[in-house]
Formats: sequence, C-alpha cells, structure tokens
Amino acid sequence: MIKVYGDLVSGNCFKVKLILDLTGVAYEWIHTSVMDGETRTSGFLAKNPNGRIPLVELEPGDFLPESNAALYYFAQGSQYWPDDNRAQAEVLQWMFFEQYSHEPYIATSIFKIKFLDKEHELAEELAAARPKGYAALDLMEKALSGASFLVGEGPTIADFALYAYTHRAHLGGFSLADYSAIRAWLDRVRALPGFVAMPPYE
Amino acid sequence: MIKVYGDLVSGNCFKVKLILDLTGVAYEWIHTSVMDGETRTSGFLAKNPNGRIPLVELEPGDFLPESNAALYYFAQGSQYWPDDNRAQAEVLQWMFFEQYSHEPYIATSIFKIKFLDKEHELAEELAAARPKGYAALDLMEKALSGASFLVGEGPTIADFALYAYTHRAHLGGFSLADYSAIRAWLDRVRALPGFVAMPPYE
Repeated sequence: MIKVYGDLVSGNCFKVKLILDLTGVAYEWIHTSVMDGETRTSGFLAKNPNGRIPLVELEPGDFLPESNAALYYFAQGSQYWPDDNRAQAEVLQWMFFEQYSHEPYIATSIFKIKFLDKEHELAEELAAARPKGYAALDLMEKALSGASFLVGEGPTIADFALYAYTHRAHLGGFSLADYSAIRAWLDRVRALPGFVAMPPYE
Repeated sequence: MIKVYGDLVSGNCFKVKLILDLTGVAYEWIHTSVMDGETRTSGFLAKNPNGRIPLVELEPGDFLPESNAALYYFAQGSQYWPDDNRAQAEVLQWMFFEQYSHEPYIATSIFKIKFLDKEHELAEELAAARPKGYAALDLMEKALSGASFLVGEGPTIADFALYAYTHRAHLGGFSLADYSAIRAWLDRVRALPGFVAMPPYE
C-alpha cells in the first residue's frame, strides 16, 4: 500500500491527502513531525535527502518527494488532470506560481506565527512578506472572478495546490475579506465529493 | 510565430530559449527588461498580471507565464519529456525543487550581487542564503554521482530547469569546485545538439 510520510498541520502534506481522498486511492499515513525533528533523522534522510515532508513511498523503497509532484502523479487518469497539453501547461503554471510566489509568503507567515510562535520577534520579516502574499492573492482573485476554478471548467490539481495554504491564509495574518471570488472558490473545493477537511489548527 | 518576452540575463528566460533551440521550434524573442521597468508597464501587465518574465505568447493573445510551465509545454512529444508517469513525476519533482529550494538562494544571490550590485549592502541576506544554496547543490551532486542526467538515462527538462542558474552559481558567490558530478553534468548539457549558450554576463 502507498505510504505517505507527513504531518497534517502542513498544507503541503494536506495536498497529498486531498488528491488521495478525492481519487479514492488507499494509503497509510505515517505521521512525521518537522517540529519534533523527525525529518532530520538519518533514517528519514535516507528516504528523502532533502529532509522534507510530504514524502510518498509508492512501492517499498520507491520515494517521491515534493507535494506538487505527488499531485501530478496521483491525478493521472483522473478528471483533475486535463487531457489537453495547453490546459496542462496552465495547471503547471499555477503550481509553479504556488511554489515561488505564494508559499514563500503565505505559508511561511503561517509557520512563523503559528508554529514558531514568533509573531513579535519576526515582525519585520512578516511585514515584508505581507504585500507579496497579497499580490499572490490579488492574482488569484482576478483569475477566479467569473471562473469556477483556476483552469477550465472543473477542478484540477492547480486548485488543490493553491487551496492548501490559501484557506489558512488568515493564520498567517492575511484577511480574505476583500477576496470574494477566492472565498467562493474555497467553498467549491470543499464541496467536492470525497473532500476531507484539514484538521483545524489547535 | 511564437513570441517570447524575456531578457537573456535571466536564467528563467534562458530556460525557454534552451528548450526552443533544442526542439527546433521557431520563435521571435522580444527583449523585455526587468531592470528598465518594462515588466511593470500597463501594457505588459495586461499580458501577464504577475509582471514577470519569461512570458510566452503561443498564439496572438494566448499567454503562458512561468518558465517551467513553458519547459513542460515545449517538451511534449520530444525526448526531453519521458513517456512513463513515474519518471514524469520525478522530472516535476526536480522542477518544483528548483523553484522552491534552489532558485530562492542561488538565483536571488546572483541578482543581488550582479544586478542590484549590493553585495556589501545585502551581505547579511547573502550569508543567510549561502548554506541553503549549498544544500541544494549537495542534493544535486548526490543525485548526479554515477548518473549522467537527473532522471533516467537521457536529458529531460529537469536538467534544463536546473542548468539555468547552476551554471552561473559562481556569480552568486557559490563555488562549484567541490561539485565534480555537477560540473560534468553541466558539460553534458552544453554538449547537447542545438545547445546555444547563455550570453556571458557583462
């Protein structure tokens, strides 16, 4: 059975759970905590030299790191990966955008505030990330105004990649009050058959 | 004809030129400079709301941003995109790694030193990026030790994505002296038929 090493406090890990739940693939979840140092042990580094979660084990000893690569792999043959090459490129465009223009500001702000508990100590860094995170949200809002999903008519892995941290942006100090298209889109993702929510942050 | 808006001082722009040269696709290059503010004009933002280069115009009015999405699109049907889903996921794994774990440290260091000319002013930021950039290079060195290319037996777009800034890492203050597998791999990429080098940094 497929194994996923991850921690459901992480949006990147949640992405993998989401695609597996939505496509009905059976998996074993192996809780692996960054905060407890479990990704830096020699045992884990032998599985993933990058020392990051999520990590998927497709077959015993066959490891696939990178959450967005896992989204791609498990979406093959499903409705969540379009058939058309041009649309596929657009899906990947949003997924690379997520890693370079969204996660470094929104996910890292959540991490600094909620996990490191350094909202005051890192106030300057957080303030610097704020306009860049909002710029990413602005771009999404523009794309989702008048559209149900990011690419084409139905949900794709572009939506799942960006759902992960957008729906928790408030934990990083970002307000979605002015982003009505994003809020409606989050609801559409949550309404997909098979969707299982990320555990609430404690 | 396909148009590419970009600047060949940028590794991300070079990626697009590289795949087009290697696959023999004709294109028009429209020089667009970040440093001269040409990506922030209302005309350019109408083409790409993210205000970034490279930007590919596939058909008049049909725009594809994100260098790695362009690599994917132009590699379809070529030897640079594998047929097997598992290998495809591994190619994308390296491309997401490039955007999240390599470019933010190596490319941004090159930018700060060579384009902003702020090596001394930003010394602290540059020093903070150094171990993270070397960690990315360590991972590549490990993967390339005993392998000709990053995925499988032949070159893929994973190699092109990572070639772009790795071959200029020295401009960002990174030495490749201890990375013999990376240096041999850079030579293998340069030896590909159709390869046209990035212009030297002036």
